[in-house]
Amino acid sequence: MRSDLDALMEKRDLDAVLVEGPDGMGGANPAFAYLTNGAHVVGSVIKRRGATPQLIYRSMERDEAERSGLDLVNLDRWPVHEIQREAESQLGARVELYRRILTDLEVSGRVGIYGTGHLGAYHSLLNELSAALPDVEFVGEYSNDVISLARQTKDTDEIAAMRRVGELACEVLEKVVTFLRSHQVRDQTLIKVDGSALTVGDVKALVRMEQAKRGLESPSDFIFAIGRDAAVPHSRGVPDDPIELGKTIVFDFFPRDASGYFHDVTRTFCLGHASEEIQSAYQDVMDAFTSVVAEFTLGESTQAYQHYVCDFFKDRGHPDPKSDPTTTDGYVHSLAHGLGLDVHEDPYFRTFGPSETVLEPGMVFTVEPGLYYPDRGYGIRIEDTYYADEDGRFHSLTPFPKDLIIDVGA
Amino acid sequence: MRSDLDALMEKRDLDAVLVEGPDGMGGANPAFAYLTNGAHVVGSVIKRRGATPQLIYRSMERDEAERSGLDLVNLDRWPVHEIQREAESQLGARVELYRRILTDLEVSGRVGIYGTGHLGAYHSLLNELSAALPDVEFVGEYSNDVISLARQTKDTDEIAAMRRVGELACEVLEKVVTFLRSHQVRDQTLIKVDGSALTVGDVKALVRMEQAKRGLESPSDFIFAIGRDAAVPHSRGVPDDPIELGKTIVFDFFPRDASGYFHDVTRTFCLGHASEEIQSAYQDVMDAFTSVVAEFTLGESTQAYQHYVCDFFKDRGHPDPKSDPTTTDGYVHSLAHGLGLDVHEDPYFRTFGPSETVLEPGMVFTVEPGLYYPDRGYGIRIEDTYYADEDGRFHSLTPFPKDLIIDVGA
Repeated sequence: MRSDLDALMEKRDLDAVLVEGPDGMGGANPAFAYLTNGAHVVGSVIKRRGATPQLIYRSMERDEAERSGLDLVNLDRWPVHEIQREAESQLGARVELYRRILTDLEVSGRVGIYGTGHLGAYHSLLNELSAALPDVEFVGEYSNDVISLARQTKDTDEIAAMRRVGELACEVLEKVVTFLRSHQVRDQTLIKVDGSALTVGDVKALVRMEQAKRGLESPSDFIFAIGRDAAVPHSRGVPDDPIELGKTIVFDFFPRDASGYFHDVTRTFCLGHASEEIQSAYQDVMDAFTSVVAEFTLGESTQAYQHYVCDFFKDRGHPDPKSDPTTTDGYVHSLAHGLGLDVHEDPYFRTFGPSETVLEPGMVFTVEPGLYYPDRGYGIRIEDTYYADEDGRFHSLTPFPKDLIIDVGA
Repeated sequence: MRSDLDALMEKRDLDAVLVEGPDGMGGANPAFAYLTNGAHVVGSVIKRRGATPQLIYRSMERDEAERSGLDLVNLDRWPVHEIQREAESQLGARVELYRRILTDLEVSGRVGIYGTGHLGAYHSLLNELSAALPDVEFVGEYSNDVISLARQTKDTDEIAAMRRVGELACEVLEKVVTFLRSHQVRDQTLIKVDGSALTVGDVKALVRMEQAKRGLESPSDFIFAIGRDAAVPHSRGVPDDPIELGKTIVFDFFPRDASGYFHDVTRTFCLGHASEEIQSAYQDVMDAFTSVVAEFTLGESTQAYQHYVCDFFKDRGHPDPKSDPTTTDGYVHSLAHGLGLDVHEDPYFRTFGPSETVLEPGMVFTVEPGLYYPDRGYGIRIEDTYYADEDGRFHSLTPFPKDLIIDVGA
């Protein structure tokens, strides 16, 4: 939580954090959005340990800057244009400006660097700036950084925002089911009033409308994939594919609303009917889902749950990534990931590698077991967003049923 | 253009470029989108000078990876999970993986780094990787980098995509005008059928619906601001503000479509009537617009046009940023910026600082003079997107009229 930030900085021996909010990042800068409370500004946040964060902003954006609620520092405090005039390059101007800002704001010691931006350009800036500011050591935390660790446990307001976006996402799912049901069937295919086949593209257009109505957006698109495409977990679906009965449809929807918080839900549908093989695999995924949720306990390693589900599927005769890391059949990904201002964030539930992450109160994460058989033309994934409360109870934020078969053509 | 990339790399003495496409960047990674043709993948592109770019992708995303049209390299070629198991940290694992990838793909010499991601984390990665790969020198170009320079001149396909998104954006503008006109007037305010005032929030909801219908999205929101808010160039507008007659409304709309290319258009409206002062300032902005467009010539410095408009407004008695860089009255920003896969990109039209940028065929950029008087409660901006053809003609991609006054209450 935000209130943990000073303690985390102390643990990492950081004297300050610098969180960059450059132009063009849209919603792809969760660290900056977290510290600025989602204000639409370009700028930098500097927080010294124990002090209120300061937002360095441009005059043209003063109204949006005020919305951040931070201490405001107008960039015009420094002679930006004079510095630009005198510099030999854009990089030189930026180094000199930053040197003055950090000096004047009394930033020194170990300074952690966060935020999203242009990787190569910023690397050069930090190298030059390190030379220009001998009293500052710039620290790039690679993983489990202090901002991510603060973000991975949500406070009450954040849970409320995430509950709300979950409700809106489920409204869109409901609209999709109603829309599919409203179509006639011909030759095992849904057809439109003009007699042509309903397509993945038609359904995606409906989703885009229904999300816009609710103030939702999908910055990385969403997945609506049928048959063999449903068996490639990140295939977004092929617009021209007709919606056919009896094939698995994976609808993985991960929108955010104006608060910036994401929801993540997946349902797998078969229209009209499903083969015994699909029904059996679906039941295995449902059983994995309910079993692992029943196991969740505060303080336990997230990696243990990924291993639990790997073993669960292995027992049911499916390939799994713990036994074969490169399998593209069976269970092929990890059980879960955190979400919040980013659709994938800490906590992760990794199969391999160092992982000290344990379940903590306030964590919000997906639960998403799945089984994929591209050569047999089907894939299945069931996903809710969960959160852990103070008492160690785990709650779904995804109020939507998990039925495989949708009756159509009535 | 893409075809310039090898020549640009040679000029900068770069043996290869590495363009990162990490998770969570959505549309905020134009360099990666440019090289992967907009495929929805997480991965890295490596292009050695003279060779076809290679996309390193994950199995789970193989379908999307194929859409890039690049040479594909499956990450499973390397024992990712074994490396993770043996590493002491996430950073250590990543360094070892990259060391092997760059070695196996025979990347050495000067390697430019591009793409969007987590700034601090990547800085650490590059520092560690530099130590692990003595034959590689990682180069972070700070400005006018080779990818940006390739991107700043568009080819025929890109111009066609940008023309299309311009047409769609103007359809939304037309819908907004029709929507405003459809309302009754009471006490100099537009009212809804329930008798309450039409608000900025209502109009923004309409824009979101109309853009969704056309497959447009606005990753950084858009500006619909009235009165004093219209005089703060980057204020997004206050949802509860009523739509009143006689006040300036600045509607700055910068959506992109599924191609990833942006359009950028601003219109300023007064409903019903406008004061003489506003009409006179509006005419000054229109005159600045038409005068500067008439001056555009291939090979001339972009900075010269910003200076031209500064002088133009100064002659008409308005403050300008060349005379006073910190003014918040009058003309307060720059004339133009390039756009394409990013809403702000090269070429820039900077007031100050080093600028060797000249107008070239294929450049697409905004033209957006404006005048702002927050204390007098109004702001004006007029903006089209232009492109330069091979013959040195400049064309608007924004087919929408520039009338100030919209008749309402008929």
